[in-house]
Amino acid sequence: MEVFVIGVGLMGGSIGLALRTRGHRVTAWDIDGERLDRCIAMGAADSASTDFALSCAECDIAIVAVPVSNVAELVAAALSAGAPVVTDVGSVKAPIVSAVEGLSTRSEYFVAGHPMAGSEQDGLDGADADLFVGATWVLTPTNATNQDAHALTRSLAIAVGAEVIEIEPERHDALVAVVSHVPQLAATTLMDVASEAGDGSAVLLRLAAGGFRDMTRIAASHPAIWPDICAANRDAIVDALDSYVEALGAVRGMVASGDRVALLELLTRARNSRRALPVSAAIEGPLAEIRTPIADRPGVLAEVTTLAGSLGVNILDLEIVHSIEGESGVLVLVVPSARAASLVDALISSGYRPVRSEL
Amino acid sequence: MEVFVIGVGLMGGSIGLALRTRGHRVTAWDIDGERLDRCIAMGAADSASTDFALSCAECDIAIVAVPVSNVAELVAAALSAGAPVVTDVGSVKAPIVSAVEGLSTRSEYFVAGHPMAGSEQDGLDGADADLFVGATWVLTPTNATNQDAHALTRSLAIAVGAEVIEIEPERHDALVAVVSHVPQLAATTLMDVASEAGDGSAVLLRLAAGGFRDMTRIAASHPAIWPDICAANRDAIVDALDSYVEALGAVRGMVASGDRVALLELLTRARNSRRALPVSAAIEGPLAEIRTPIADRPGVLAEVTTLAGSLGVNILDLEIVHSIEGESGVLVLVVPSARAASLVDALISSGYRPVRSEL
Repeated sequence: MEVFVIGVGLMGGSIGLALRTRGHRVTAWDIDGERLDRCIAMGAADSASTDFALSCAECDIAIVAVPVSNVAELVAAALSAGAPVVTDVGSVKAPIVSAVEGLSTRSEYFVAGHPMAGSEQDGLDGADADLFVGATWVLTPTNATNQDAHALTRSLAIAVGAEVIEIEPERHDALVAVVSHVPQLAATTLMDVASEAGDGSAVLLRLAAGGFRDMTRIAASHPAIWPDICAANRDAIVDALDSYVEALGAVRGMVASGDRVALLELLTRARNSRRALPVSAAIEGPLAEIRTPIADRPGVLAEVTTLAGSLGVNILDLEIVHSIEGESGVLVLVVPSARAASLVDALISSGYRPVRSEL
Repeated sequence: MEVFVIGVGLMGGSIGLALRTRGHRVTAWDIDGERLDRCIAMGAADSASTDFALSCAECDIAIVAVPVSNVAELVAAALSAGAPVVTDVGSVKAPIVSAVEGLSTRSEYFVAGHPMAGSEQDGLDGADADLFVGATWVLTPTNATNQDAHALTRSLAIAVGAEVIEIEPERHDALVAVVSHVPQLAATTLMDVASEAGDGSAVLLRLAAGGFRDMTRIAASHPAIWPDICAANRDAIVDALDSYVEALGAVRGMVASGDRVALLELLTRARNSRRALPVSAAIEGPLAEIRTPIADRPGVLAEVTTLAGSLGVNILDLEIVHSIEGESGVLVLVVPSARAASLVDALISSGYRPVRSEL
């Protein structure tokens, strides 16, 4: 692949290193010339782009790895300059997808993404060829997304060692609000409330045991990225905060009224959920191949992959075999054997005709 | 010392092991005879008590290490049976102190305590002679507490390797509500809200990165102790939850209105507070001795030590030298040299006449 990396912070630099390690060719661009030089010097790109439009036209895929507030504009610019496929790594998806649809007539070639590793605003110095190995890389194709563009973006994420999961842009934003953005704000707020309760004295700090330290660890992270994220994912964060505050109000009621039964039920339910959190998404056991005929038009691939995503079925490999006529094709998926039956059932329910075989 | 340990779970067992390792003699009692046998078998006590009242009368100090809801009753029983000094390890203090005052005519010999390590409801199997090494052990003497009882309790905590800090019972409860009880409830609630938002699908779990895992880790802990703690520390927990919910409401407002300046200010303030959390209470550098004449009556020692506690000054050693007449004495404190001046100033402000010397 010829890959054009737009923006060389932690994410762009790591993608460049990872791709070059695996034999792909990388051209890089950055608004900051000094950073671009460092990127070349550290081997995160083969060459620096001196002509943004030309690099777009000459690549197979462009990756926009800039802060979330600038993503849509650069994606649209890359599409307009003729990049065959464009993806991004922004931590919020629906506003970007909808902005690109408004800015570009070629938005079907934009496949929005969010690798769950590092941050798009951390620095190039932390770049690591293995940053994405074993990480979850979310793609949020829509029913307008071009299938080949989607498949190519998928193979790029897999090329750098990630596991791809597809979900709808709005659902991505709602879920990351709950598992990432609200936790950050909750930890920050808890630390601030505790600090105020301690009234500047050192006593509080002496009483802060492991649980408090765990809960507030992310409050020590770099603050500057959060106002951007809060702005970009505002609605989903407000909704999730409302749910959280409402649930805390219910807990307050249980404590105030001494409702031990309700408290114990909540604590037990939460413990079970927490214990069910997988330690890693490691793949184990035998694999199955699912082949299903698909219409050769936008939306089908997104439908199948988001179906797998909602079932938690990990698609390890994916290929579209186009028919000669160009109006139909066969989609080939490789999934863990243990989960294949649930995906086959769901595909049949949605009107597909999948055939499964063991690998 | 002859120590009578009442209740041999994790705390009682660990105290027994720690004291025996350091040459003290331990008698143990438990409502569960089988557990008491195991305690002897593992060397956490020299002998099992067959007569609660006799063991109380024969010890130098009795330690009540039972679940928080049973502490006050057993403390009162030990006092009534003639234990010279009684302490406890319950995680809530004001309700216990006030209950003991109501139940016993000898409540001045009860010095309430809370070692910030393990839990009073975890099992004997986890008992560890080094559980308290370097841990903070809170004592909450009042102005009625007998000074020698206080000093003896202090030396017991120091004998097992802990660092002692004195604060008022109500302040202890308010602070642990903020740094321990509300964090537990907040983590539990966050896990539950996230689990519900994920709607049973595995997607959410795939998106849950390190911050979420850190924040919800304590939600996986043993649920059964929390209804008791919530009942015992109800008022302080409700107050702290109210502060937390109010602060989250303010954050929601910042996100909804896109107030980047306020968000960044909050995030930065919380980061600075989090970074100021000491990794450990390790003692470094030179020490100073502060000698100050004190009246030989209850309350004086509590006043001096809680003053040090509120300043965050770690009292490493403490001795009361009684005068022959018995109406006055000299209090000798050893503190880190770097913090000695602040304690000396505070003592002078409170009407004491301290003299400092370097060790």
